[in-house]
Amino acid sequence: MDIPGPRPELLDRFAAIVGANHVLRDSNDLAPHLVEGRGLYRGASPMLLKPGSTQEVSAILKLASETGTPIVPQTGNTGLVGGQTPRAEGTDLILSLERMNRIRDVDPVANVLVADGGAILADVQKAAEAVDRLFPLSLGSEGSCRIGGNLSTNAGGTAVLAYGNMRQLCLGLEVVLPTGEIWDGLRRLKKDNAGYDLRDLFIGAEGTLGVITGAVLKLFPQPRGHQVAMAGVNSPEDALRLLETASTLCGTSLTGFELMPRIGIEFSVRHTEGVRDPLSDPHPWYVLIDISTSDSAETAERMIQTLLEAGFESGLIRDAVIASSVAQQKALWHMRESLSDAQKPEGGSIKHDVSVPVSKIPAFMAEADKAVLEAVPGARICAFGHLGDGNIHYNISQPVGADKAEFLAKWRMINDIVHPIVLAAGGSISAEHGIGQLKRDELAHIRSPIEMDLMRRIKMAFDPAGIMNPGKVVSVP
Amino acid sequence: MDIPGPRPELLDRFAAIVGANHVLRDSNDLAPHLVEGRGLYRGASPMLLKPGSTQEVSAILKLASETGTPIVPQTGNTGLVGGQTPRAEGTDLILSLERMNRIRDVDPVANVLVADGGAILADVQKAAEAVDRLFPLSLGSEGSCRIGGNLSTNAGGTAVLAYGNMRQLCLGLEVVLPTGEIWDGLRRLKKDNAGYDLRDLFIGAEGTLGVITGAVLKLFPQPRGHQVAMAGVNSPEDALRLLETASTLCGTSLTGFELMPRIGIEFSVRHTEGVRDPLSDPHPWYVLIDISTSDSAETAERMIQTLLEAGFESGLIRDAVIASSVAQQKALWHMRESLSDAQKPEGGSIKHDVSVPVSKIPAFMAEADKAVLEAVPGARICAFGHLGDGNIHYNISQPVGADKAEFLAKWRMINDIVHPIVLAAGGSISAEHGIGQLKRDELAHIRSPIEMDLMRRIKMAFDPAGIMNPGKVVSVP
Repeated sequence: MDIPGPRPELLDRFAAIVGANHVLRDSNDLAPHLVEGRGLYRGASPMLLKPGSTQEVSAILKLASETGTPIVPQTGNTGLVGGQTPRAEGTDLILSLERMNRIRDVDPVANVLVADGGAILADVQKAAEAVDRLFPLSLGSEGSCRIGGNLSTNAGGTAVLAYGNMRQLCLGLEVVLPTGEIWDGLRRLKKDNAGYDLRDLFIGAEGTLGVITGAVLKLFPQPRGHQVAMAGVNSPEDALRLLETASTLCGTSLTGFELMPRIGIEFSVRHTEGVRDPLSDPHPWYVLIDISTSDSAETAERMIQTLLEAGFESGLIRDAVIASSVAQQKALWHMRESLSDAQKPEGGSIKHDVSVPVSKIPAFMAEADKAVLEAVPGARICAFGHLGDGNIHYNISQPVGADKAEFLAKWRMINDIVHPIVLAAGGSISAEHGIGQLKRDELAHIRSPIEMDLMRRIKMAFDPAGIMNPGKVVSVP
Repeated sequence: MDIPGPRPELLDRFAAIVGANHVLRDSNDLAPHLVEGRGLYRGASPMLLKPGSTQEVSAILKLASETGTPIVPQTGNTGLVGGQTPRAEGTDLILSLERMNRIRDVDPVANVLVADGGAILADVQKAAEAVDRLFPLSLGSEGSCRIGGNLSTNAGGTAVLAYGNMRQLCLGLEVVLPTGEIWDGLRRLKKDNAGYDLRDLFIGAEGTLGVITGAVLKLFPQPRGHQVAMAGVNSPEDALRLLETASTLCGTSLTGFELMPRIGIEFSVRHTEGVRDPLSDPHPWYVLIDISTSDSAETAERMIQTLLEAGFESGLIRDAVIASSVAQQKALWHMRESLSDAQKPEGGSIKHDVSVPVSKIPAFMAEADKAVLEAVPGARICAFGHLGDGNIHYNISQPVGADKAEFLAKWRMINDIVHPIVLAAGGSISAEHGIGQLKRDELAHIRSPIEMDLMRRIKMAFDPAGIMNPGKVVSVP
């Protein structure tokens, strides 16, 4: 059998760096690492390496640069754009950080935590909790995704409104460069104006500029008060005005503001176990409001009541309910989080991970709805998401009774309708998932030539041998 | 007379881009632009250009790249490290953004404001206030410093604890590259994971990678409650423990936490008009606590009382006063802000703009004090600053009766004592002022060769002709 990619002698040299016990070469062992969660990308690779230290990562990348061997970094393998998947040719080796999963240090006075790039997000959250602190990044995949991947994709999640995305949650990095050199930027400083911002260049670079092997993360006080409410509103416009009121009355205590359409609630009630219609009468749109206060539980109670009163008084809220227990709070969030899965039993669903400036969400949705319904009469638009971040999961379920495959064949056509409307509103076609392989060619079309050129210049300056996760984000000659 | 620098014919070509009315060539007119505030740097230049548009900036940089003419961008000329000052040889032209001072747009729903790079900070603050929003960047020079300079130095100021520095306050940029190409990155998005983070590379680059001609800035709700208190404490250790309590009880409502030594209070009382000793008895250290709440004035009142009670109960606070009026709040802040000037009548003062991880401040100060007093017995250490940010202005007044010039001659020697202690604690020798000319050579000594190399690679990738504010931050061959 003809083995593609690097020759066995070279593979042995790579294996010797980490030791035979920390190498996968068998195709069955490799299989789960060659495909990503949605099955959109399936790659090939002769070998997965599990280094146990930053020095071993360095030795791997040094050898890779010297021999022109492409390396794909992989952490929790939960990415949604194929950034962590090797290419199909079988030329790429996989570098897994799963053994580098330590919490290196926790300092509740300085409010920092230092973790390996392979530390699991849930372990970081728990280590913060153990010292009465909060690490706010929160994702569906938090039990398996890892910090290096969270940083490389600048992960978002449900707490961005108050705490920001991963870029805002990181103070310092340790990165192994494609040449094998180690950049020790593990600073714990809030203020450090000394030269170019290398940290934020590596964050969000999807492993194309180096491998993040360690990070200093910010911790926050654990909130003392927490309130969750669900409100029925007439329109996205009213939801937006309510957001403005909430932002004024609650400031940074407003930790979530999620928009959902009636059809999404119906899907959830129909298909998700334990979900009930949250309000006695149906409403065109729903808003999930989450408030966390640092000083006391009473402040959160007063705040949610003040906000709902203001909403009723101004006519923005038609009806509302405040969760009266932690169980009820979880149930309301569960409904919101079930929306994606609840679409599945309704047939095919065409998805968009888009953001627009918050104030333009109603206009964007009205225009996109019109264009989509003209192209596919009867399509059921289930657009929901982080209204407070301007990030909408603009999903479209097939018309009732339509053929699923026929509907899904329109995916690219529908993208080509929705994305130009997003871009005309000054929006982004990738709000939180990144570019990877999925949107690499589209990125080159929507960004200006000068922006693509700057990215290529950076890529070539950092990775002259072109071995670092090639074929992702930007193509270089 | 032999005119140094570019030849008159070339100068005429630059002048023609902006028009004769918008050019300074007379040495008297140029004089104020050739020196920075502390008089540490004095440069020479044959011409200052005042473009009126991004297109004119582009034409200037295109011609500069083609002809190898160095360009120094200048906004409010308030920088403290010589970053905005032309070099002494007279080769550099100054590009002033003072005509590009418009607020382009204010959107209180999306909480964004778009400004020219030459907009004055105070004008941005006022434009936000006019729509009941806060732009939180606050500096002593806010009446004259400009947004492009604030971004290029990643400015900090007194509200970093709650709102972050300039990098955290900016969503998008418009930048003219050294080649004259215009990068339109004026995005208003909270979430946009589409390629490398060019924005944060230009922020803090001190004008060495391009000229920031426009920016999208974040706005925040105006706080409804505001409380200021002054507490006497025994030691930096106790101040740090009080900060931990305050952070737990107040969360993001804690908007200021400033540390001052008794000697600083004495200097201020002695030399600053209208300043009185804030507490009836003297205390070794003082903490200024600032709390802003978004929901109501009552929350701030309750919060400051809860915090002070907790401080008294735990024995961390010896005595405290809460400002009972806006005038008293201003008076307490005035005392804090006067500390730098109040040192002047006491003779020479050797300064350090340093940061260390917050938890290491007491140990850093103890070690630095010991080493400094061994080197200069009788030196009066007046270390104060943003404890909450880990940023200390570690200033040292001369011994009583010492010779000022003789004391100031020890500046470099004292730097060489203090900076290694800062670095050993994982700190930074430039917390907020930047590198410019002042710390350029020191930066190359304290950063790893690989970090300096990455910065040089970026500089060369962005500015191949080497015309963009040369001699600042990094030296390239």
